Amino acid sequence: MTQRIPTVGVFDSGVGGLTVLKSLLTQASAADYLYLGDTARLPYGSKSRATVARYAVSSARFLVEQGAEALVIACNTASALALDALRSAVEVPVIGVIETGATAALQSSQTKDVLVIATAATVESHAYSAGCRERGLRAIEKACPLLVPLVEEGWIDHPVTREVTGIYIDDLLSEASKAGMTADTLVLGCTHYPLLRSVIEDSLRAHATGQAVRVIDSAHVTAEQAAAPLAPRADGQRKPAVRFYATDSVEKFRALGTRFLGRAIDGVELVDLGG
Amino acid sequence: MTQRIPTVGVFDSGVGGLTVLKSLLTQASAADYLYLGDTARLPYGSKSRATVARYAVSSARFLVEQGAEALVIACNTASALALDALRSAVEVPVIGVIETGATAALQSSQTKDVLVIATAATVESHAYSAGCRERGLRAIEKACPLLVPLVEEGWIDHPVTREVTGIYIDDLLSEASKAGMTADTLVLGCTHYPLLRSVIEDSLRAHATGQAVRVIDSAHVTAEQAAAPLAPRADGQRKPAVRFYATDSVEKFRALGTRFLGRAIDGVELVDLGG
Repeated sequence: MTQRIPTVGVFDSGVGGLTVLKSLLTQASAADYLYLGDTARLPYGSKSRATVARYAVSSARFLVEQGAEALVIACNTASALALDALRSAVEVPVIGVIETGATAALQSSQTKDVLVIATAATVESHAYSAGCRERGLRAIEKACPLLVPLVEEGWIDHPVTREVTGIYIDDLLSEASKAGMTADTLVLGCTHYPLLRSVIEDSLRAHATGQAVRVIDSAHVTAEQAAAPLAPRADGQRKPAVRFYATDSVEKFRALGTRFLGRAIDGVELVDLGG
Repeated sequence: MTQRIPTVGVFDSGVGGLTVLKSLLTQASAADYLYLGDTARLPYGSKSRATVARYAVSSARFLVEQGAEALVIACNTASALALDALRSAVEVPVIGVIETGATAALQSSQTKDVLVIATAATVESHAYSAGCRERGLRAIEKACPLLVPLVEEGWIDHPVTREVTGIYIDDLLSEASKAGMTADTLVLGCTHYPLLRSVIEDSLRAHATGQAVRVIDSAHVTAEQAAAPLAPRADGQRKPAVRFYATDSVEKFRALGTRFLGRAIDGVELVDLGG
């Protein structure tokens, strides 16, 4: 009997969500994938809830029209600001990165105090705080708006990136300390941040006062948690089929995306979602 | 006899163009103004020509529908990538910042060698190089993608901003030197950069080898050059009427815009241009 292969849509404002797709391709290889980067309208992280919801809903509808039977919202900002709007707009299951990130923080934290770094819009929504509170955790969130541009400039292991990261981490740890928290877990609440993981870990070691802090990649965790219900790991070496869509230049998507997916990307299709 | 007061539309992807509006309000006060910031779709500086042209044309049409009898394209990226598309799309005169910036560079430069800093899209279009070449100047352009996020983070006089600016200026001067150029003029090819003018001037002084470099603000020059044909300076203390439009959060437009306009902004209207 042949196993039916489901089609899963993965959505992000840009190429960052390719880190989630990368994990899905190995952890849930008994599925095929559609990936949409809404590159013509990025970034979402500096925009309002109404605008982000409008963009995310049109993107999700496009993926469902193309055959997606479930959606993984790899974009933290869209997950934070538009998950309800998305679940109302489409009839397929929708998995967001905030809920899975908060669950992973619960599994990681002994002290029940958690740090979150994310975009300005994600932090202003306090979606991580709410998700953590529901799970009995305290969370402090910090917006780090310069980290995405630094990654996109390609300054990954760069003195400026180390300095900026240090400023953000230092602010965050001071705030946590003032609140009487003993955090042992930091959630990377943006799909660009895993590329700065070692810089962030170094900065935590340099600034932390006693308590070691474990870094959690919400993208990776989402893939892990999404894998079981969406698709089991395939027997043998099944290589999922992937179709890529972008709303702006396919050349730029390919060039920048390769860094996130960790392999060459071909056959990106340009789509017009209006605007 | 009462002088007829023309209505001029000023367009930018965000709030940066308010520096141009600010100059127009004093230099061409015998006009009223409409200002549109396409904040839901910014930034333009990292996007493709086709996408920028589509966004700029829909924005320009909106301003003409609202009564604009002439358009000032304060956005360098839109001026660089979409000026022809804009002139085809609307029937009113369209003034862009690249042409006026290149003319100002010609007036400033003795050595005929000019430096330009701008967004990635503006630099890739080589619109400044072409505009300078037409005027008998040589130009070298440098993309500075981190400067806009640094200004938007509010890190104006900040050690990180000084370091990043130093890296960009140093690269630019090295490249100019390798090309055998003796530049004496630097054009600020993005409406965010005037806020970093003193940081940029300090950096030029620190890195320059002999030849002093004068900084030209293309926004200010555009207002000066636009003033005469659009509207003379009004007699007395006429205060032009201004209507503000934004495509994303009006609160954010007001909060961030105040820094660029140099005075409080009220009555911003939210508009939906699709997308």
